[in-house]
Amino acid sequence: VASSWINGVRADRIGAEDRGLHYGDGLFETITCIDGRPRWLALHLERLRRGCQRLQLRWDDFQMLGAEIQSHTPAEGRCIMKLILTRGPAQQRGYRPSGDETPTRILRRYDWPAERAPAPTGFRVAVSSVTLGLNPLLAGLKHLNRLEQVLAQAAMGAAPLEEVLMLSSAGDVIGGSRSNIFLADETGLFTPSLADCGVEGIMRQVVCASAAAHGAPVRVRRVARPELSQVREAFLTNVRWGVQPIGLLEGRPLPERQHARALQEWLDAPHA
Amino acid sequence: VASSWINGVRADRIGAEDRGLHYGDGLFETITCIDGRPRWLALHLERLRRGCQRLQLRWDDFQMLGAEIQSHTPAEGRCIMKLILTRGPAQQRGYRPSGDETPTRILRRYDWPAERAPAPTGFRVAVSSVTLGLNPLLAGLKHLNRLEQVLAQAAMGAAPLEEVLMLSSAGDVIGGSRSNIFLADETGLFTPSLADCGVEGIMRQVVCASAAAHGAPVRVRRVARPELSQVREAFLTNVRWGVQPIGLLEGRPLPERQHARALQEWLDAPHA
Repeated sequence: VASSWINGVRADRIGAEDRGLHYGDGLFETITCIDGRPRWLALHLERLRRGCQRLQLRWDDFQMLGAEIQSHTPAEGRCIMKLILTRGPAQQRGYRPSGDETPTRILRRYDWPAERAPAPTGFRVAVSSVTLGLNPLLAGLKHLNRLEQVLAQAAMGAAPLEEVLMLSSAGDVIGGSRSNIFLADETGLFTPSLADCGVEGIMRQVVCASAAAHGAPVRVRRVARPELSQVREAFLTNVRWGVQPIGLLEGRPLPERQHARALQEWLDAPHA
Repeated sequence: VASSWINGVRADRIGAEDRGLHYGDGLFETITCIDGRPRWLALHLERLRRGCQRLQLRWDDFQMLGAEIQSHTPAEGRCIMKLILTRGPAQQRGYRPSGDETPTRILRRYDWPAERAPAPTGFRVAVSSVTLGLNPLLAGLKHLNRLEQVLAQAAMGAAPLEEVLMLSSAGDVIGGSRSNIFLADETGLFTPSLADCGVEGIMRQVVCASAAAHGAPVRVRRVARPELSQVREAFLTNVRWGVQPIGLLEGRPLPERQHARALQEWLDAPHA
């Protein structure tokens, strides 16, 4: 059961005229909070700011958003805060924004999900038959048009998998349905370019920054599907999972997790 | 100002946990109502039924939906009814549907929009720089993930255009941002295939059925962008506009409207 605040007031209903509902016209952030601290908050707010610019969604007060998230974060324990920022109630019928909308902000606090039994052998992952359409104008954003991810998750059914990988409609590997992917070959780590589709995850940013700081920058590039059958190591990232090694990739065991372990240690250190 | 009913009750707020808001996980129909009669109602409900099947959104009672729309249609005058059917309140966090959600239905009645001065020379239309991602699983559906159309409409700005055409990411012509397109060459009418993206409009169906009944079926096929510079006639369709001739296509006047006129006459006849 979630607690919910809308435009700063405890509430759990929004106007049925909201463009977030009608068109998915908005953005969201999923923030992990641990012992009173919303983690990576500045990065979340910065991504949201970029998203607002790209969608021409007029919102300025990111400091207030941060303070609001902080104020609703319990001093102890873990929870998940989801922030949705829509363009707001429609001022006219039809797709075209008037430009004068007042955004709606929805903040919902969820219990930390019950953990499954840990997977000592790593996540089991396969490629979904659901693909991602290409759109450079929306690529990278955590916007509210998420039917492709819904279909990919629904298609998993009862398959013994912790995550599915999604390809672009052009056939390239983009990432997990709710995570980013990193792969390693003998020259180091690489991760798919998100220039045409996919979400630029916060943990992806953190991993890239950490790797660069350690003198082994991650290459961001096109990743063709056949490369999956050649890598020795791969891991998934999101803010809840952190760095999650893949143990079984399309049925093939991945023997190594040297990069994942180094990153996990770095993430667990007090500085992170 | 709209009137609004939610799950059959007069209301204008929905739960902030609705998957329609979080993911655009739902469908909609825009129905024109004239003098007590929701036009093409059976076709709208049939498209909605197909959409529910494709999204595995469990809804059975389309007859009740039709009765509800009919009951809120004023006996005189014109209005627009928008029906949104979402997968309903989330039963768990995350993209994956539980399969046990109870859909939310939102019915909103809008005044008929004020008409602009009629355009005796036809609509002015150009190609948008905003493209449509390819996804066969979503193609054709009138789902709630509409950011591409929002961006295309926003990008029109103050350009002297009544509509913009959208290309697929593969560069093919798909349709208008809120309409379908038909084109004519010396062999007759053709319209873009919507196998990979686009919305299968109700008026598009009506036009195709009428043309077939008159012995000149519309060819549905891939339409490459350069063809736009060669057609002698083109028109747009949606339920509000009916058949709307294009007078100026990317700055080039289109001299003919023989097919559009024949279809308009047929649509205006009492049988339609």
